[in-house]
Amino acid sequence: MKNAGMFTMPGESGYEALTLELAKRWRADVIRDSDGTTLSDEILDAGYGIYSTVCLIRDHNEWAAAHPDELQQTFLMTPPAAAESETLAVSLLESFFAEQFAVNDSEEAMAYWQVWDRTENRLLSRESWSYEAESGTVTVSGCTPYHTYTVSFLAYRIWEEISMYNHTTNHWDKEHLMQIDPIHPAAQEYLRGWMRAWCESHPATTVVRFTSMFYNFVWIWGADVRCRNLFTDWASYDFTVSPRALRLFAERYGYSLTAEDFVNKGRLHVTHMPPTKEKLDWMEFVNDFVVSFGRELVSIVHEYGKQAYVFYDDSWVGVEPYGKRFPEFGFDGLIKCVFSGYEARLCAGADVPVHELRLHPYLFPVGLGGAPTFMEGGNPALDAKQYWNSVRRALLRAPVDRIGLGGYVHLTEGFPDFVDTIEQIADEFRLIRSFHEAGKPWRAKTRVAVLHCWGSLRSWTLSGHFHETFRNDLIHINEALSGLPLDVSFLSFEDVLNGALENVDVVINAGFAGSAWSGGDAWKNPALVARLLRFVREGGAFLGVNEPSAADGFADFFRMAPALGVDEDTGDRQCHGKWEYEVEESALVPAGSFVRRAEPYRRGVPFLTDGKTRVLLEDGGVPTLTVHPFGKGMGIYLASFEKTNENTRLLLNLLLFAGGEAPDGCFLTDNAQTECAWYPESGRLVAVNNSDAPQNASIRTPDGTVSVSLLPFETKVLSI
Amino acid sequence: MKNAGMFTMPGESGYEALTLELAKRWRADVIRDSDGTTLSDEILDAGYGIYSTVCLIRDHNEWAAAHPDELQQTFLMTPPAAAESETLAVSLLESFFAEQFAVNDSEEAMAYWQVWDRTENRLLSRESWSYEAESGTVTVSGCTPYHTYTVSFLAYRIWEEISMYNHTTNHWDKEHLMQIDPIHPAAQEYLRGWMRAWCESHPATTVVRFTSMFYNFVWIWGADVRCRNLFTDWASYDFTVSPRALRLFAERYGYSLTAEDFVNKGRLHVTHMPPTKEKLDWMEFVNDFVVSFGRELVSIVHEYGKQAYVFYDDSWVGVEPYGKRFPEFGFDGLIKCVFSGYEARLCAGADVPVHELRLHPYLFPVGLGGAPTFMEGGNPALDAKQYWNSVRRALLRAPVDRIGLGGYVHLTEGFPDFVDTIEQIADEFRLIRSFHEAGKPWRAKTRVAVLHCWGSLRSWTLSGHFHETFRNDLIHINEALSGLPLDVSFLSFEDVLNGALENVDVVINAGFAGSAWSGGDAWKNPALVARLLRFVREGGAFLGVNEPSAADGFADFFRMAPALGVDEDTGDRQCHGKWEYEVEESALVPAGSFVRRAEPYRRGVPFLTDGKTRVLLEDGGVPTLTVHPFGKGMGIYLASFEKTNENTRLLLNLLLFAGGEAPDGCFLTDNAQTECAWYPESGRLVAVNNSDAPQNASIRTPDGTVSVSLLPFETKVLSI
Repeated sequence: MKNAGMFTMPGESGYEALTLELAKRWRADVIRDSDGTTLSDEILDAGYGIYSTVCLIRDHNEWAAAHPDELQQTFLMTPPAAAESETLAVSLLESFFAEQFAVNDSEEAMAYWQVWDRTENRLLSRESWSYEAESGTVTVSGCTPYHTYTVSFLAYRIWEEISMYNHTTNHWDKEHLMQIDPIHPAAQEYLRGWMRAWCESHPATTVVRFTSMFYNFVWIWGADVRCRNLFTDWASYDFTVSPRALRLFAERYGYSLTAEDFVNKGRLHVTHMPPTKEKLDWMEFVNDFVVSFGRELVSIVHEYGKQAYVFYDDSWVGVEPYGKRFPEFGFDGLIKCVFSGYEARLCAGADVPVHELRLHPYLFPVGLGGAPTFMEGGNPALDAKQYWNSVRRALLRAPVDRIGLGGYVHLTEGFPDFVDTIEQIADEFRLIRSFHEAGKPWRAKTRVAVLHCWGSLRSWTLSGHFHETFRNDLIHINEALSGLPLDVSFLSFEDVLNGALENVDVVINAGFAGSAWSGGDAWKNPALVARLLRFVREGGAFLGVNEPSAADGFADFFRMAPALGVDEDTGDRQCHGKWEYEVEESALVPAGSFVRRAEPYRRGVPFLTDGKTRVLLEDGGVPTLTVHPFGKGMGIYLASFEKTNENTRLLLNLLLFAGGEAPDGCFLTDNAQTECAWYPESGRLVAVNNSDAPQNASIRTPDGTVSVSLLPFETKVLSI
Repeated sequence: MKNAGMFTMPGESGYEALTLELAKRWRADVIRDSDGTTLSDEILDAGYGIYSTVCLIRDHNEWAAAHPDELQQTFLMTPPAAAESETLAVSLLESFFAEQFAVNDSEEAMAYWQVWDRTENRLLSRESWSYEAESGTVTVSGCTPYHTYTVSFLAYRIWEEISMYNHTTNHWDKEHLMQIDPIHPAAQEYLRGWMRAWCESHPATTVVRFTSMFYNFVWIWGADVRCRNLFTDWASYDFTVSPRALRLFAERYGYSLTAEDFVNKGRLHVTHMPPTKEKLDWMEFVNDFVVSFGRELVSIVHEYGKQAYVFYDDSWVGVEPYGKRFPEFGFDGLIKCVFSGYEARLCAGADVPVHELRLHPYLFPVGLGGAPTFMEGGNPALDAKQYWNSVRRALLRAPVDRIGLGGYVHLTEGFPDFVDTIEQIADEFRLIRSFHEAGKPWRAKTRVAVLHCWGSLRSWTLSGHFHETFRNDLIHINEALSGLPLDVSFLSFEDVLNGALENVDVVINAGFAGSAWSGGDAWKNPALVARLLRFVREGGAFLGVNEPSAADGFADFFRMAPALGVDEDTGDRQCHGKWEYEVEESALVPAGSFVRRAEPYRRGVPFLTDGKTRVLLEDGGVPTLTVHPFGKGMGIYLASFEKTNENTRLLLNLLLFAGGEAPDGCFLTDNAQTECAWYPESGRLVAVNNSDAPQNASIRTPDGTVSVSLLPFETKVLSI
């Protein structure tokens, strides 16, 4: 069994022979349907486990049409408009995609509407504006000329966003699917019945795959094709709101949320920024509801002898796999689609029996961003190798239980090298997993903690895929860490104050000033600063990236400047002299590694605060990598971090150095393009080539040095 | 006389023949002494006007040594030091240059000392610290471990900074000069007597040149040679403080200033940042004193039948040539040393009878920054041409009355081309001035106002020379404007609220968010925003550079975003979609001009707020030059501005466009490397080549197009 199973593949009616041939070839144990495919009896009866995809909220258009007031809703804010006279007419939907939204002008909804004078940050009284439903226009009276005004209002979402996206992007011409809001008792009752009926009508299904639960990540579209995407944040809760939910929230929490708590002057609340208390309360409230009603539906699935897996995407909001209540759902498995190593670690670390990865590329004609995949001009075998290259190094450190694919198997015809590549990947996956089963891989002693506002709730991820969050250093850091032989934890500032540093050697804090990843106002707390300075003084290390520990209003902009020996000039220190320095050669810095000076949201220019700060790299005359002693510990500063193979090794070297370990010890390769993992219980050393060129590497072991030659992207297993 | 005089040259004892030969060659009318030179009778009696340099505060070491408590003082703050236990000892002077400062631990001074917990921004009570004079150490008790502490204290300056600079940089080995503080009645009495004695002992002197009045610009040196310069700001008032002045201030203003009002968490108050009310009051107080006592000394000079000129440098603080009280000094002339065009305009615009420029290079072996000038490896003729190239275009627009040189004439031996160049420059200067005497040069109709916190008090300059302030877009803008055929004024935000926009067509606001040049909190005032939006709506233009009108806490980060059609994503909008755009070809953008995306203190990434915003330039996928209609007017946005010949023409084109004028109208060249000035009353068109290569240009006039060929840096006068 070690070289079979643990693999989920898509089946497709009309391609039964191909489906079963590939199932055998890839040694699959499960066949799944995909959006737009069905499984024929020939497949269902072939002895495989069967996954069936269920999207709870969007395949009920008949019920939805009959209950238009039970569709999901959101707050929207009109763009600031300047008054020219005392009266201003504001069209509510003019700037939004008309097919996505409909104004909710019911009495209970309008109680939440707000009109703001944004020039003076003043909420207008209800008497100063009126609404004309026919034109969908709010008219504001008593305006101050040349002040700008916005209207915040509740809107129904009349087109589910994934349906909308596929329709628009893939030129589908199907019915617009609506999504219902299970916050309403009638919708809950409907869904309970529907879930039972579904289970009864799908006897062959062994695993119900939920995509995902109830609430979409936010995705607000605009009217103009030149600015279609107005806002999207994969981890935001904007699409969970309704008058009923707001009322229930007020009853439970003892205070009411307003439109402004959501629209936030038009910025909304991106996950990259520190959350407000109101947002955290709301997230908890929604999570509580999603867990409570979600586990009811999972129980129904279990009643029918089926398993319930959750696919961590689309309508995942409120599910929170790293939330405390996640185990209460009773899910049997979590499936995560992965481009990157950090996503594999995210999946591997969730508290659920089975962890499964959906690999890329999907069996679709085009990939994300519209590049050809399974069509002329595509190279899906190379794509698969490159994605696997990112994921594999994470799986060397932490195991998942299954992998699989999605899409249309018929597209693999004409791509035999893809079929070969998947066969090889599946075998590698099963082999690596077998080593984990025998015992944990070797890790260095240095224990690393990533410190930010979200703490463990956002372990490994920020808010979505790498290409959506690449402007933030931390996703590069997390991606690098995902394959390093180190124990990594994710801490909030509250955790630090509650004693979490006891089990940590190096704290990483990485982000631009004011962001959730740097910490924003959290750093105004003297107790936090003092606790971390003590941690370093007593031997710990603080590794700061970009604008770590930054807060306005104090003597130091970087509050950890005493440990870092570095601070930042945000313009109010431009008349201050700066320490001169020489750049030191250091074995910690691999050839080809770099640390750039600029980040898109950086406020200023780093400078040394202390003559004892050692500079290891600079960029454009600015120190970008420094080391500074502080008591028994040290501060390490990187002006930015960009994930490359060389920079990943730089980070490992710095972390080992910070933890008092040698960067050239046992079970580390001497070539930054390669990595290795040592499984003591299996007696196996796995070496991987993370590059697309052949590489040689030497690895020290207690029994001497091992040399290995690796083809591009190759995995080699050595017995020691 | 049109081709003679108006020229001040340095004389030197021992080089009488050379002095008089060059005076004839350059057609000088005045001979001056320089720091370290004297004029012999042969020179004094040669029939020239005689300038004599007087530094009021630093040539009185005998008196100073007898009155050590009447030396000038400053507040200093020790660097933040982290406590490890409940007690922390802080050496006051350890981090400062020991030869520059001595602690003032008199009872009245110590009343101003402060110890701060900088981790929690808390002022400690007087009981929690003690001072030991012998070791110069403050011991803080009751510390919170790992909090950082600073001590702010008063220190005497025991070495005048220009003396210190020359001593250190030019390896002088003279007595350390001290500077006395005329705030003390005894010092005033001494200076009155000294001034009279000086006048009596210098009968040949026709003009007393004050260098400058009483107070140095701030220059704090550090202990470590690797960080010698701790702080310098040419327009800061830190070196004007004393217990007596603080007491007089409190009596006059009804409230007391504290050490923190000056040290400001260690940042001090750089001129590039918005001033506090306390700083403005203090500046007014000091200016009042400097004018009051300064005019007494000027009167003494006048009593002796001499003139009094002020050299705008060294100890200029409190003089404020653009302050309301400047004319009260009774100065007969203002002398400004110039590297740049904006400095020439600064001099030209001051309210004083005679405006004189001190040209670069000085007749010194090395120039600023230590590059060779009048020694092997130097090319002073080329230096002179290049500086003149910057200054000349300003003098085409606004006249000054005199030019001159400083230094040691003997150094010109061996540099005959320098002597030729100065002869030519002096002739050009006198010719251009003659056109101004006949009547003002032609200007376009568009009236430009530069808007920032300091308003007219900092007309043309920011705080010092170009190379000291180049990180700020505005100095590049001012330098470009200094030679453009436009009327330019400088407005404060208060001026705008008081009606100053009546006489303006285009408002420029240029700087990073929070700076004095952008405006900082001034933009939180709704009345200001509304007034400027009305100005644009009614036909004006707002040209914003970098982070114009930026303020935190509102819907728009750029408060003028409704007019600009551009705002900036500082990280909290990274999940928001952005308008797609095409870059338009525009005749407004000269070949070779550019607008870069990044500035050292920029917070984020510009984005379009409106589909009507036209993009004329981009950089790295970010719009960097845009035009946006707003009512009858427009907003123009530049992500940055760097002074080059091409970018200067770009700015002119944009300003003319904003003012409703054609960028290819009469009296403009068609080659961005060249400029011209038209003097209607003289019937002369002056064309200049601002580049070091030959250029051809055509100039439209009402009588047809004129073509001109220009050698590198050439000036040509055409009669029309």
